[in-house]
Amino acid sequence: MLQRRMQLSLQRCAVSGPFDDPLVAESAQTLIASLRRQGIAVYAAHEEMPAALADGVTLVPRASLPNEAQLLVAIGGDGTLLQAARLAAGGGVPVLGINRGRLGFLTDVMPQDIEAALVAVLAGQCTTERRALLAARLTRADGSSQQQLSLNDVVLLRRETGRMLDFETRVDGRFVNSHSGDGFVIATATGSTAYALSCGGPIIDPALSVLVMAPICPHTLSDRPIVVSADARIEIRLLEQASSGRADITCDGLPLADMAVGDRLQVGASGRSVTLLHPPGYDYFRSLRAKLHWGRGDEPKER
Amino acid sequence: MLQRRMQLSLQRCAVSGPFDDPLVAESAQTLIASLRRQGIAVYAAHEEMPAALADGVTLVPRASLPNEAQLLVAIGGDGTLLQAARLAAGGGVPVLGINRGRLGFLTDVMPQDIEAALVAVLAGQCTTERRALLAARLTRADGSSQQQLSLNDVVLLRRETGRMLDFETRVDGRFVNSHSGDGFVIATATGSTAYALSCGGPIIDPALSVLVMAPICPHTLSDRPIVVSADARIEIRLLEQASSGRADITCDGLPLADMAVGDRLQVGASGRSVTLLHPPGYDYFRSLRAKLHWGRGDEPKER
Amino acid sequence: MLQRRMQLSLQRCAVSGPFDDPLVAESAQTLIASLRRQGIAVYAAHEEMPAALADGVTLVPRASLPNEAQLLVAIGGDGTLLQAARLAAGGGVPVLGINRGRLGFLTDVMPQDIEAALVAVLAGQCTTERRALLAARLTRADGSSQQQLSLNDVVLLRRETGRMLDFETRVDGRFVNSHSGDGFVIATATGSTAYALSCGGPIIDPALSVLVMAPICPHTLSDRPIVVSADARIEIRLLEQASSGRADITCDGLPLADMAVGDRLQVGASGRSVTLLHPPGYDYFRSLRAKLHWGRGDEPKER
Amino acid sequence: MLQRRMQLSLQRCAVSGPFDDPLVAESAQTLIASLRRQGIAVYAAHEEMPAALADGVTLVPRASLPNEAQLLVAIGGDGTLLQAARLAAGGGVPVLGINRGRLGFLTDVMPQDIEAALVAVLAGQCTTERRALLAARLTRADGSSQQQLSLNDVVLLRRETGRMLDFETRVDGRFVNSHSGDGFVIATATGSTAYALSCGGPIIDPALSVLVMAPICPHTLSDRPIVVSADARIEIRLLEQASSGRADITCDGLPLADMAVGDRLQVGASGRSVTLLHPPGYDYFRSLRAKLHWGRGDEPKER
Repeated sequence: MLQRRMQLSLQRCAVSGPFDDPLVAESAQTLIASLRRQGIAVYAAHEEMPAALADGVTLVPRASLPNEAQLLVAIGGDGTLLQAARLAAGGGVPVLGINRGRLGFLTDVMPQDIEAALVAVLAGQCTTERRALLAARLTRADGSSQQQLSLNDVVLLRRETGRMLDFETRVDGRFVNSHSGDGFVIATATGSTAYALSCGGPIIDPALSVLVMAPICPHTLSDRPIVVSADARIEIRLLEQASSGRADITCDGLPLADMAVGDRLQVGASGRSVTLLHPPGYDYFRSLRAKLHWGRGDEPKER
Repeated sequence: MLQRRMQLSLQRCAVSGPFDDPLVAESAQTLIASLRRQGIAVYAAHEEMPAALADGVTLVPRASLPNEAQLLVAIGGDGTLLQAARLAAGGGVPVLGINRGRLGFLTDVMPQDIEAALVAVLAGQCTTERRALLAARLTRADGSSQQQLSLNDVVLLRRETGRMLDFETRVDGRFVNSHSGDGFVIATATGSTAYALSCGGPIIDPALSVLVMAPICPHTLSDRPIVVSADARIEIRLLEQASSGRADITCDGLPLADMAVGDRLQVGASGRSVTLLHPPGYDYFRSLRAKLHWGRGDEPKER
Repeated sequence: MLQRRMQLSLQRCAVSGPFDDPLVAESAQTLIASLRRQGIAVYAAHEEMPAALADGVTLVPRASLPNEAQLLVAIGGDGTLLQAARLAAGGGVPVLGINRGRLGFLTDVMPQDIEAALVAVLAGQCTTERRALLAARLTRADGSSQQQLSLNDVVLLRRETGRMLDFETRVDGRFVNSHSGDGFVIATATGSTAYALSCGGPIIDPALSVLVMAPICPHTLSDRPIVVSADARIEIRLLEQASSGRADITCDGLPLADMAVGDRLQVGASGRSVTLLHPPGYDYFRSLRAKLHWGRGDEPKER
Repeated sequence: MLQRRMQLSLQRCAVSGPFDDPLVAESAQTLIASLRRQGIAVYAAHEEMPAALADGVTLVPRASLPNEAQLLVAIGGDGTLLQAARLAAGGGVPVLGINRGRLGFLTDVMPQDIEAALVAVLAGQCTTERRALLAARLTRADGSSQQQLSLNDVVLLRRETGRMLDFETRVDGRFVNSHSGDGFVIATATGSTAYALSCGGPIIDPALSVLVMAPICPHTLSDRPIVVSADARIEIRLLEQASSGRADITCDGLPLADMAVGDRLQVGASGRSVTLLHPPGYDYFRSLRAKLHWGRGDEPKER
């Protein structure tokens, strides 16, 4: 799993999240108090943190949080952590997630364990995991382009309900297939347990450098998910058909752009990665068992 | 399959379709010429038929086509036939489909067989099949409502890409489940081979009076399609959650309305049905084998 | 759901189950004591009940249990109830299931609720549900045949591991498909949540008179489950191919026979049904929610 | 795809296959004649080749075929090629497959193209691909063990029909899950389009060093395929439950052993690989499109 212990000499910590959610605010208060007791300077984004929470906190522009701090703590659901990861990507600051949402494949500290997690961080008892980000680039027919990073996935989805989307896919320049359906997901190993799983994709060990390309509700029943190298350059174009319409592209659930016939969507390795910090005892398979309500649950005691 | 022979004393025939498509226009010309040679009066909608095709054709408002004619021929894809079926529903006029689209579960006369099919219709060699239509009604929080018929399906789909839709379902007043995902399909047996099949639903013998309720890309992997009685009254409400957003409702692929928290979508039997006319030799399972690229294909010769 | 209240004037009750399982024996003791306190005569099968449990119990041959009693209580898992149901099928005696196994779609009284359930039975507060049984008949090339009833399903499974089974299916004499794969399940609505669900079949409301025909790990990805009428006569024959090998046929998990090329398996309505007794408050969808770990689980309180 | 051109100075060629199949014999005759015209010595296994075919062929023990020849041609279905691959694994001799079976993901020369393929081989126009083999080892409770190589997959399948198999999986010593169902497949990227695909597994680019672990008809619907590193050490043990029964283990469809509670099945990289030879123009995705009846089929011409 490429996990290693990380010893942080933590003097400056950044906190991010949707603080207007009372549960997130509550956990933020707990964390900030705990950090200040330890003599650690706390930073937050002035775009995010309300005055009521900001006592003793240094407010800076959100984009500069990774520069100010040695650790970025995201409080919320997996969506919050995904945004924090994109913020931190490329800089060296690791990200720790506190779960106040419903999912939590990525945010693996529970609210009641905030102080224990902080102790573990300071004691160098956390494990770290590097996870690579995808780059998505949409190039218009006129040559203009937009791009974005994704930790989980890039999703192409039909925009006009009631009509199928027709598009074709290429990998490293080789034609793969022409598809009809609701759309297409390109997910990292990290994102394999998110939307791609609902589309019939496999679970992928997050240590693997592979992607999954999964059609969404495909018209052809044999149009199945394909696992390719994380270095693959994937390209999607809409087909010129009466039924095609337009498509929306999202990166980690946030809109990148809408796509029309003639545009080219290219997805591939970004060269950027983020370091996730996990509390002691983190185990990927235990997390799967809990999230997916697997089997008799617990690891067998004796053997 | 509840199929019976139907003897039509055919004196007036209506033709419907997207005549601006050259392939549809071509088949319309063939059909109109053939009908006129047989001394059968031809009706078409002035909203649909261009002057170039309308020589010797009586143009009437589209809505009155079923009143004028003893047979309604739909030329196009399954979408064309679905619209013709809703037009014909409730009146007694049967519908015959000529396939110029890519699907064709419903439009089962191939373009080269138009004249043979017409001969079969006149000779009473076609089989008929009654298929029931769904009624969908969206009731707003303010009591206003909109409704529509569907031969295939009623679909609820999240409107905001990148966010899951949260909603709950009831059958005959009993709570079924709360769902998170892309949306929900309620399909008739007829529609079971359309979008619902791409969502993991079963194929349903069209003679059965049942519906399938299928979640679209559900977040919970055990949230599976449920088959219920065609008399079931199904109700869907959006859940009040941050992530809910709005939803689009379509009937047979055409927009009914968008739905918000507080609205109620009710789907159930409409009491209306449409009579489909099939050419001699029609066999539902052969049609499935061809459309789904099944097995070694042909029916074994000897036994 | 075709449920009705049933008033039983209960004077004689039969008990069945794998009493060598200590948990089953424990619940049997609780039940027998409770029945005897109510002055109800208890019957059990001498093939099943050990002397240690049989104090005050009248032992009879297992086959005559339904004749002796007005109620048959099955203690164990769903397998136990399936066997009790086949025993009771055709006679009028209803069946109540006490759950000591892991599944429990059918055995819906929990061990701690035995006495409360008995009180409810005596007070006429239980609901009843009639569920139809399938008949499976295997006819050999030499004309000999074997048959069996099934409440859940009839399963055809390849016998030789490592080779696909090739076979073809017919419904009411019409050819459906030739299949290659691990085998085939024909399930009642009752059995739709058992093995057929693991094979990709839909959940079917148990009140519906339909069957699901589901291929097991089919070679052709578009070979999908088909829902047909419960009156359909389904026929399966193995294909004469090098790879075919032999197949095992099971009814509700118990072996019926093995099948070879030249044999004919016919499955259809048996005309027999069994009456299941449910404790007050039984709700099919709640049972699904609990068994399938659905959503946020409980029925919403307010509305 | 790690493909390279290979220049073979071909003087000795081995031929393998089920020659009692008339179609295989026919292609063998064509190939042998063609080889002899080129002055290439032909070798075959005396266990396989009948006298009628062996004119001018040197018969040797099957096991020594890879030592005698510079190329091994397998004629038959994918099963034939899998056996040839295991024979060739570890030696350096490449394998070319001629398709006389129904599948043909691996045997990609069609019978009518035998001579053209031979010309291409001699001209060094073929591409080569190295594909790794799995090693499966079953260790009994008494310490004895059996092992075998697999190019496609190792399959664990319940032996007693009608009962679920209960077992647990570990990857690199870490507990993954306890499973109930029909069994489990561990497939290489090469085998991902074979049995694993029928079990819901993804298609995996054969150039990737990963495995897919896929449950077969699992009882828990969220028990989904997992993609792990090809270096992972996977271990399976049966659980001690009443319902467990025994299991059969097959490697590429051939029986390895049966497994009981107390035995340990270990699957991992074998360190062996085989070199497959593909005719000019081979394209993995085109092969998928043809085999899976994808889309509108052919690669778009213009762009």
